[in-house]
Amino acid sequence: MGILRLGYVHVRAQDLERTRDYYENTLGLSLVRREPGRLFFKGWDEWDHHHLVLEPGGAGIVKFGLKVASPEDLERFEAGLERFGLAPRRMSAGETYAVGEGVRVVLPSGHTMELYHDIEFLGTAVGTLNPPPRPRHWPGVGVSRLDHALLTAEDPALIERLFTEVLGFHVSHRLVTDVGPKGRLVATWLFVTHKSHDLAFIQGQPGKLHHFAYRLLDWDAVRRAGEILSMDDVPVVFGPDVHGLTRGQTIYCLDPAGNRNELFAGDVETAADFPTITWTTDQIRHASYIARFLREHHFSSVT
Amino acid sequence: MGILRLGYVHVRAQDLERTRDYYENTLGLSLVRREPGRLFFKGWDEWDHHHLVLEPGGAGIVKFGLKVASPEDLERFEAGLERFGLAPRRMSAGETYAVGEGVRVVLPSGHTMELYHDIEFLGTAVGTLNPPPRPRHWPGVGVSRLDHALLTAEDPALIERLFTEVLGFHVSHRLVTDVGPKGRLVATWLFVTHKSHDLAFIQGQPGKLHHFAYRLLDWDAVRRAGEILSMDDVPVVFGPDVHGLTRGQTIYCLDPAGNRNELFAGDVETAADFPTITWTTDQIRHASYIARFLREHHFSSVT
Amino acid sequence: MGILRLGYVHVRAQDLERTRDYYENTLGLSLVRREPGRLFFKGWDEWDHHHLVLEPGGAGIVKFGLKVASPEDLERFEAGLERFGLAPRRMSAGETYAVGEGVRVVLPSGHTMELYHDIEFLGTAVGTLNPPPRPRHWPGVGVSRLDHALLTAEDPALIERLFTEVLGFHVSHRLVTDVGPKGRLVATWLFVTHKSHDLAFIQGQPGKLHHFAYRLLDWDAVRRAGEILSMDDVPVVFGPDVHGLTRGQTIYCLDPAGNRNELFAGDVETAADFPTITWTTDQIRHASYIARFLREHHFSSVT
Amino acid sequence: MGILRLGYVHVRAQDLERTRDYYENTLGLSLVRREPGRLFFKGWDEWDHHHLVLEPGGAGIVKFGLKVASPEDLERFEAGLERFGLAPRRMSAGETYAVGEGVRVVLPSGHTMELYHDIEFLGTAVGTLNPPPRPRHWPGVGVSRLDHALLTAEDPALIERLFTEVLGFHVSHRLVTDVGPKGRLVATWLFVTHKSHDLAFIQGQPGKLHHFAYRLLDWDAVRRAGEILSMDDVPVVFGPDVHGLTRGQTIYCLDPAGNRNELFAGDVETAADFPTITWTTDQIRHASYIARFLREHHFSSVT
Repeated sequence: MGILRLGYVHVRAQDLERTRDYYENTLGLSLVRREPGRLFFKGWDEWDHHHLVLEPGGAGIVKFGLKVASPEDLERFEAGLERFGLAPRRMSAGETYAVGEGVRVVLPSGHTMELYHDIEFLGTAVGTLNPPPRPRHWPGVGVSRLDHALLTAEDPALIERLFTEVLGFHVSHRLVTDVGPKGRLVATWLFVTHKSHDLAFIQGQPGKLHHFAYRLLDWDAVRRAGEILSMDDVPVVFGPDVHGLTRGQTIYCLDPAGNRNELFAGDVETAADFPTITWTTDQIRHASYIARFLREHHFSSVT
Repeated sequence: MGILRLGYVHVRAQDLERTRDYYENTLGLSLVRREPGRLFFKGWDEWDHHHLVLEPGGAGIVKFGLKVASPEDLERFEAGLERFGLAPRRMSAGETYAVGEGVRVVLPSGHTMELYHDIEFLGTAVGTLNPPPRPRHWPGVGVSRLDHALLTAEDPALIERLFTEVLGFHVSHRLVTDVGPKGRLVATWLFVTHKSHDLAFIQGQPGKLHHFAYRLLDWDAVRRAGEILSMDDVPVVFGPDVHGLTRGQTIYCLDPAGNRNELFAGDVETAADFPTITWTTDQIRHASYIARFLREHHFSSVT
Repeated sequence: MGILRLGYVHVRAQDLERTRDYYENTLGLSLVRREPGRLFFKGWDEWDHHHLVLEPGGAGIVKFGLKVASPEDLERFEAGLERFGLAPRRMSAGETYAVGEGVRVVLPSGHTMELYHDIEFLGTAVGTLNPPPRPRHWPGVGVSRLDHALLTAEDPALIERLFTEVLGFHVSHRLVTDVGPKGRLVATWLFVTHKSHDLAFIQGQPGKLHHFAYRLLDWDAVRRAGEILSMDDVPVVFGPDVHGLTRGQTIYCLDPAGNRNELFAGDVETAADFPTITWTTDQIRHASYIARFLREHHFSSVT
Repeated sequence: MGILRLGYVHVRAQDLERTRDYYENTLGLSLVRREPGRLFFKGWDEWDHHHLVLEPGGAGIVKFGLKVASPEDLERFEAGLERFGLAPRRMSAGETYAVGEGVRVVLPSGHTMELYHDIEFLGTAVGTLNPPPRPRHWPGVGVSRLDHALLTAEDPALIERLFTEVLGFHVSHRLVTDVGPKGRLVATWLFVTHKSHDLAFIQGQPGKLHHFAYRLLDWDAVRRAGEILSMDDVPVVFGPDVHGLTRGQTIYCLDPAGNRNELFAGDVETAADFPTITWTTDQIRHASYIARFLREHHFSSVT
């Protein structure tokens, strides 16, 4: 019952073919469908039809989708979103290839969010009968799956209230200016799974994408990913490093359109009773650990 | 809503003090309470009061506890267990130190299971305000938390039905003698979180414990754990190795009483819509990967 | 000046093509030359023409070669071998493809050893101008280079004396039955480089090969190697594990002919003034660490 | 015969006690001796008396020592240094505690270098009889040994000629402005062991220290080191990262006096016949891999 995970992101890319080459051959995703002006991708360890759709344009996020556990969840969340004062609308099956009917809403942060239950099942690259632990070969990095996204919001506290009260998310981390009553919420990390975040929001211009993240196995995979990124002349903008906030082992790079990707391992393990962790902005150099400072571009540049 | 996780195990130990020394100084747990004949332990990354209670005796499991998300869950599960034909009984707050009221039931597998919602909150070793990613030092291996347990059952299929229909578990892996209708269920891996299993049951004598498992960060932590085990002359009975079934990176050892522990990293990432994986017994050498054979003791010796 | 390293081994294989497939596609060596009845291989990080020659036959070692730093070393070692009572003979350039003239001798252990200075230079797979840290792709495990070999000798002490007094080797480890005067030498680990051993000898039937070893980067590479070995149905006979003796991180497997290979990372760092380490046979379970026992086949089965 | 390794560095520190705390408790060295105004340190895997001496002052290098294999080497190198036009002088045993007699010379780069053969033997922390692979515990990072140093020179080509022609070093890497005859040597990496460098020189003001480096086991140890550095509020100035030039896995930090330390794993494996690798300054962003640019401070700031 409830939201299962961040299911997909649609992002814009200036040069679709060059960007395809990056996601397919550098990150190692599978191109599962081509439509005029749209490219669909899946990671090797995902069973749903796709998690990424590239659309024409400069850069930035078009929309994202959250998969829910049952059709009843759609109705329940639709009602909740309305009670919260938003204007959800039904979307038809097939508006996006392979995705069933759902609910679409524009968030107070300016992002378009879709809730859906049905999506075509493709299965993972290793199958479900006596599978090996991973594919024997893949091109490039071989990221396994979509992990999370970090978006901007003018009012992170409002978004936090929406996601926790209406959509059943929990808060793993909060970045505040102060722990006292004068503290202002700068960013919030929200989860429905076991991770530090399926979605996070940081104060900024509405409707923007800071990054979306792919899962890697561990710190050694982060190193090998960095080596592939360098061989393929992909701009690395942060890392390899360990985040204090989340314990994530991480490297950030840019796709050819300028969308920021994170390749992410480690992470704290959460649960519904996880005691929320507070970070204060004066300790931000430890939040993004080791290198101990949040580089300017890290939270100011969004596409 | 529902079950959050495997919260605790009570196991027997012949020599309580020697066994304490192992859990405290070799595995690196915190001893949080001593009672006459009972020792309580917690991992550094756990916030609940304890996950392990040592009780006097030879070896083997006394009981285990599942933490539920709300008091309502207790009522709902109590009713469900009764409908399944079992005889759940209410347990009072404080019967086990720090644990609130709950429901106790003897499973068809012969194990005593407790469901509870309240347990004293101690907090993790790193706290919730600008925490470092881990304690700077700990004795021994430094396992972070209880991960799962593997128990025996005369009829794994019955147990699987109980846990999925009544308690909301999902099945990540099934080990069968054959994929066709003649296939018999040998073992089942059950989860309520995101892991391959919070509990697993394998065919065998009723009421036995195969092992309970602790979480490690990654494959390198498995190596370092093995080195500590060896320095402390702890018998290693399997691994280091990678399981095909679960992708777990693993090493098994024995506590001084003879209870089997697994130290476990990696693992497949599951969800409520995870497509169950089937392993057939003819491929069992790949199920426990790399070394490619399930050593005799691995599934026959239980305490 | 002196011996640079173990340069090559010639081993026998029943089925040359199946064995080629293993070395080429599972281990990831490059096949650099085919001759009737001979296959030559090189690792991606080696610059000399080859380090492995497969020859027809059952299994076992035909001969091995040590590369020396200068032509003068050949003369010096030839004289030294004669003084030691052996019968070195000159070998002509081209007797083995790509190898220059040298000195061939049958050791007291029954093995044929060749010393040579010239061998055709092929260069590594990444070249010498602004190279990446590794090839972007390779088939299979991708071992980088030949590391060492373990051979048998009826009298390890005699061999140790030969290699240290005549050939300039140092001893990193000695396995003895006792540290006192009653101690008998069971095995000796000999180096000319910085490693624990370029060659080691263990008491046993003359002329046999226990294993030859390939270099991997680290413990994570050992895990990934094991996964490839399992996917390719290669028999793993030991490990993954950490040797107490050498600190080597290791996995052993069999080529299709039955020759034992070790894939090896870690290792102690030695120097000419390295204080020799003594292991006593009563501690042998710690010498091959973690699993803490030297399995029967480990030192008794040689090809 | 010849030089064995970089044996020690003497560096200045403003605040000896605070700097001692860093080397002892953050890096995990052993303080082996205190003299008025001098502190001596050793790593756990080193057998010689010390590799680091802290002396009073601001920051920077006082001198460094190369250990030679035999007393005859001292005479041979003394003669060679004179022929090269330098002015070597004999130093007496005991001028530095625990170090025997030797040869001292001021290099054309302005650094004081000492050659010595005898130094008191202390033994490693694990000993030479059935040793464990590492100490069970140590404070902080637990670096195992001194690895190399990078110094400045006005004329790197002259220094390269001195070290190769007189002292028997080999060149693993050269950084040049161009591969053609117009190419100027910017930096040179020199080895006598098996590593990419025991000493390296980069163009700059005479007599300066860029950094000296400690050995770590692998990439995972680099991560854990970074976490300790951050917990101890040590400034990290580069990394974690992988160098293209050397393949070193690395993190740089500053001691409390401002001397730069590198913690280093990985590294290319060299030999006397290693084919020298050339890097051109236009590819410098790949030389220090992944992050793909050599940050300004990396080669401009020296103490």
